[in-house]
Amino acid sequence: MKDTLTTDEQVASAIAAAKARDTVNDIYYVACGGSYALMLPNQYVMDREATSIAGHALNAAEFKARAPKRLGENSVVILCSHSGNTPETVEAAKIARAAGALTIALTNDPGSPLDEASEYVVYYEHEPKKISPNHSPAVLARLSFGILNAREGNAKAAKVEAALKALPPIMDAAVEAHGDRIATFADSHKREEVIYTMASGTNYATAYSYAICIFQEMQWIHSAAIHSGEYFHGPFEITDYDVPFILLMGLGASRPMDERALAFVQTYSDKVTVLDSKELGLGAIDAEVVEYIEHMAFSTLLRVYSDKLAFSRGHPLTVRRYMWQMEY
Amino acid sequence: MKDTLTTDEQVASAIAAAKARDTVNDIYYVACGGSYALMLPNQYVMDREATSIAGHALNAAEFKARAPKRLGENSVVILCSHSGNTPETVEAAKIARAAGALTIALTNDPGSPLDEASEYVVYYEHEPKKISPNHSPAVLARLSFGILNAREGNAKAAKVEAALKALPPIMDAAVEAHGDRIATFADSHKREEVIYTMASGTNYATAYSYAICIFQEMQWIHSAAIHSGEYFHGPFEITDYDVPFILLMGLGASRPMDERALAFVQTYSDKVTVLDSKELGLGAIDAEVVEYIEHMAFSTLLRVYSDKLAFSRGHPLTVRRYMWQMEY
Repeated sequence: MKDTLTTDEQVASAIAAAKARDTVNDIYYVACGGSYALMLPNQYVMDREATSIAGHALNAAEFKARAPKRLGENSVVILCSHSGNTPETVEAAKIARAAGALTIALTNDPGSPLDEASEYVVYYEHEPKKISPNHSPAVLARLSFGILNAREGNAKAAKVEAALKALPPIMDAAVEAHGDRIATFADSHKREEVIYTMASGTNYATAYSYAICIFQEMQWIHSAAIHSGEYFHGPFEITDYDVPFILLMGLGASRPMDERALAFVQTYSDKVTVLDSKELGLGAIDAEVVEYIEHMAFSTLLRVYSDKLAFSRGHPLTVRRYMWQMEY
Repeated sequence: MKDTLTTDEQVASAIAAAKARDTVNDIYYVACGGSYALMLPNQYVMDREATSIAGHALNAAEFKARAPKRLGENSVVILCSHSGNTPETVEAAKIARAAGALTIALTNDPGSPLDEASEYVVYYEHEPKKISPNHSPAVLARLSFGILNAREGNAKAAKVEAALKALPPIMDAAVEAHGDRIATFADSHKREEVIYTMASGTNYATAYSYAICIFQEMQWIHSAAIHSGEYFHGPFEITDYDVPFILLMGLGASRPMDERALAFVQTYSDKVTVLDSKELGLGAIDAEVVEYIEHMAFSTLLRVYSDKLAFSRGHPLTVRRYMWQMEY
């Protein structure tokens, strides 16, 4: 029956189930790789907004190993796997469900093992260089704020929904406006062997995802995500005129960290690419919720950067040497 | 008066204060860089062991920006700064204390600003190539399990104390036994420009610290910490015969992740350095608590690796181009 519902109905149904629980003490956000990265901003949301719920983002295998002691009927476990076929995530759903937790899964593939293993499912839409309220990071934000609203009357839930609806045309315009910069980046970085990404707050998730899924996985470029607040406590010593960084400047509470990192990295590296929420037109988004949305804007725009970079390098994003090529 | 107490008394005093609170819902572990890395295993401890307390590890500037909504009288905030002078951590202590949280700080420097800003303080001992129950990671474990015991009657607290006392001679022997391997590593890696670290569970913290504090900060070698469970969801595509990895194999619940990563990385890279808890003699530690201790064993041993590598590279660990050289 699950797949006869619209996305809005699927989201509403999961939120209603969370509302119907007697108590919710914890939300575990569980996935692997790029899907795990999408979970981090939601842990951030719980830290910032929740009075009664602790948020925990965990890699699915780590979730199994850690076997959180508080996991049980007072828990919501939100999982995500694009294919719905990631073994660790499917197993995590089974473990969570057996423990009595409410399981809500996101997948692009109805009928997949993750779908079957989970009590509630949302089939998200996927178009990497676009964003919509039915794309995975947006659905996660809608679930997090929807549950916060249902359980605690969080007033920002409606603002987040509105911001997600406002975002797509803003991003279409931003992608269009960045055309020249994207071409310049692709040309100037096509022979780099190392590129670091840096961000803080929710945007750290996008930096992490870009480092592991785009640079390491799809381009075989060495990379690490550096948290802007951690930069000055070790990583900044790696900075040099010829070391490239991508810095995401947020509009949220963590912007001061990004500004401090920007001032330093631009002084000591000649290869800094700055993406700033302000310049993307995100100033038009409600200031109270922009920090919960902007990581999606960065992901959308950066995917266009990836395409152009891959072309300049002659290394398509689809090429793998291990993934899909063998058992592991 | 604080500094007239012994370390044991300082630890006991902080635990008693946590016991005296009516309620403790959250422990925030707050620091920067290498000290932040020490906090991660304690979040792990809370996930694994706590029934009534959620653990949160946050960079100190991120803690300030995130301004957790649950922070208040039901919170314990544990902070750490070696010099006691890290501005973000000192400010976090002030914020936490003003919010009514119980503040417990660790520092190597009595009378430092962090000491002054915090209600309870433990002055830890520091000798990088050794471990003792009064070193910073050990004190943190004693505080976490001490609070768990005081609030929830956690039976592992005594076992952790015993394991910490058993660890020093084990590590002295392990360091001695690894002499040849350490020399071989230093010689074979002295011209590497990138070295990855990999681990899971509590040991991920050591991998993170090694990547940002030793390789990036002290050796200017490109690096990233890869979580063994995340490896197969992106980072493993960077693996090649000439890409060096250090893999920490734990004895705890997360060992299956490390074993899977080991099998793959050893097949596709010729430059894998494996440190295994088993081979370090940690099998002698109580199996119920070894996973909470082993990250300290890895840190201790790896510091000896660093010394030898630094010598082979002709790049002392004390050299910095930015830190201590300028304002930033």
